[in-house]
Amino acid sequence: MNLSHKITAINIHLEQSVDSLEDSKVKEALKYSLLSGGKRLRPVMLLSLLEDLGVNMSIGMDAACALECIHAYSLVHDDLPALDNDDLRRGKPTNHKVYGEDFAILAGDALLTFAFQLVSDCDNAKDCVGILAKQAGSNGMILGQELDILDDIHTLEELLKCYELKTGCLFNASLEMAVVLAQRNDLRPFASKLGRNLGIAFQIQDDLLEVTQSSEIIGKSVQSDLIRNKKTILSFMSLDKAQLYLDDLFKTIFDLMHDNHLSNQSLYELVKTIDKRIM
Amino acid sequence: MNLSHKITAINIHLEQSVDSLEDSKVKEALKYSLLSGGKRLRPVMLLSLLEDLGVNMSIGMDAACALECIHAYSLVHDDLPALDNDDLRRGKPTNHKVYGEDFAILAGDALLTFAFQLVSDCDNAKDCVGILAKQAGSNGMILGQELDILDDIHTLEELLKCYELKTGCLFNASLEMAVVLAQRNDLRPFASKLGRNLGIAFQIQDDLLEVTQSSEIIGKSVQSDLIRNKKTILSFMSLDKAQLYLDDLFKTIFDLMHDNHLSNQSLYELVKTIDKRIM
Repeated sequence: MNLSHKITAINIHLEQSVDSLEDSKVKEALKYSLLSGGKRLRPVMLLSLLEDLGVNMSIGMDAACALECIHAYSLVHDDLPALDNDDLRRGKPTNHKVYGEDFAILAGDALLTFAFQLVSDCDNAKDCVGILAKQAGSNGMILGQELDILDDIHTLEELLKCYELKTGCLFNASLEMAVVLAQRNDLRPFASKLGRNLGIAFQIQDDLLEVTQSSEIIGKSVQSDLIRNKKTILSFMSLDKAQLYLDDLFKTIFDLMHDNHLSNQSLYELVKTIDKRIM
Repeated sequence: MNLSHKITAINIHLEQSVDSLEDSKVKEALKYSLLSGGKRLRPVMLLSLLEDLGVNMSIGMDAACALECIHAYSLVHDDLPALDNDDLRRGKPTNHKVYGEDFAILAGDALLTFAFQLVSDCDNAKDCVGILAKQAGSNGMILGQELDILDDIHTLEELLKCYELKTGCLFNASLEMAVVLAQRNDLRPFASKLGRNLGIAFQIQDDLLEVTQSSEIIGKSVQSDLIRNKKTILSFMSLDKAQLYLDDLFKTIFDLMHDNHLSNQSLYELVKTIDKRIM
């Protein structure tokens, strides 16, 4: 199944899943943020690895959609005035701008809770819930958010740790749930390492795109990190050096996949599109 | 095991569980709200029913503590300025007053996520996660919160629905997880009905206590609902009639327990203490 077919399948499953909820203002608010596009990168990652492991992708659909719910909740809450105070997300007003802060908080809570309801429907729900909760929780993604808020980053190492937590942990959950669903527990350390490295690479790319591309392409206000005086990779090295650093990181990632016999398949192709940021 | 021993066991398990998290400001903030006392009513309910069903209570400890995490998260988020804007909770400054709105939002998110991490450790994690997510989610507790915010309650029936969702759903989860853990799926409808009725009774009691007791006893500002002009049972009937209504509801609850052979045991005793509000 090619990339756009996967995205379509995910979007259909997301819509159907959300349709099972009773109508309410919270449902409207959560649909606004969940079904408003996006690259569906985390679910696609999960499905791609399942495909490469020779497993029917349908067994991963609930877990895949749960990842998107977690991602959407994190964006809704991060955009709140008390956190990043963003007015725009993917070129549209942020959730609280449309539904008010109270409903944005509740919609985020509902998305987070719904993610676990979806995962409870998986085969091997026990392991998948454990993985998702750990990677999304206060030792994982939320800790990354904390480091970001505290703005207490003084070294490259601290920045990379923040990126690993903020983005790598959920990528880790995508790939680790995939190997668990494929009953390939032997691959859990690989999945975790690959996810975390990919998360770091993705965030560094974001830093570079922010200074090299227009807002039309990346869908949010350009140079907002610079305006906010937030640390980025460019706080620690030049643009050229950062590009080399990123190339090295992608080489490590491709080598890791190659060593685990996952070259030239779906996930490999997906990572190549991330490398080129063409998806 | 008597009530105070159960509360002690729950508090110990909560502390030990939270200790497994890495130190962070979010951890500090979540501990502030999770470990600051409270009646532990939802976990005690679960353990009491397990005991009555002849099952070792230790198998329910993670699920019990998960309920308390969900309850704590709901209070932290409800107290936020964008929602109820409360400064005081259990006689202490609310979470956002101590840690700031940003960390109160993250602490709530972390508590909600941690709840599912705990439940993933249960026997029968799949069913328990499903129950908890459904009852706490946007068709359950969060919908109750929505009705509360929208202030669109015009009939007694609508008020009771709001109470059932806001409080009854989590009571439902306590009792339904207990019967699932005890491998007594035949009792799920009973557990659900009992929990929901108990939730309604508990909220009506709150309404009555608010006009009859001092803030010292109930631990929050007296008559805050009246000041806010929120609907309570007393918007629809006199104090005397409301007391009779509540007595009838408790009679229904005791009859329901009697019909299911759960008279004169732990849960029955617990409900009696709720009826008298002596715990």
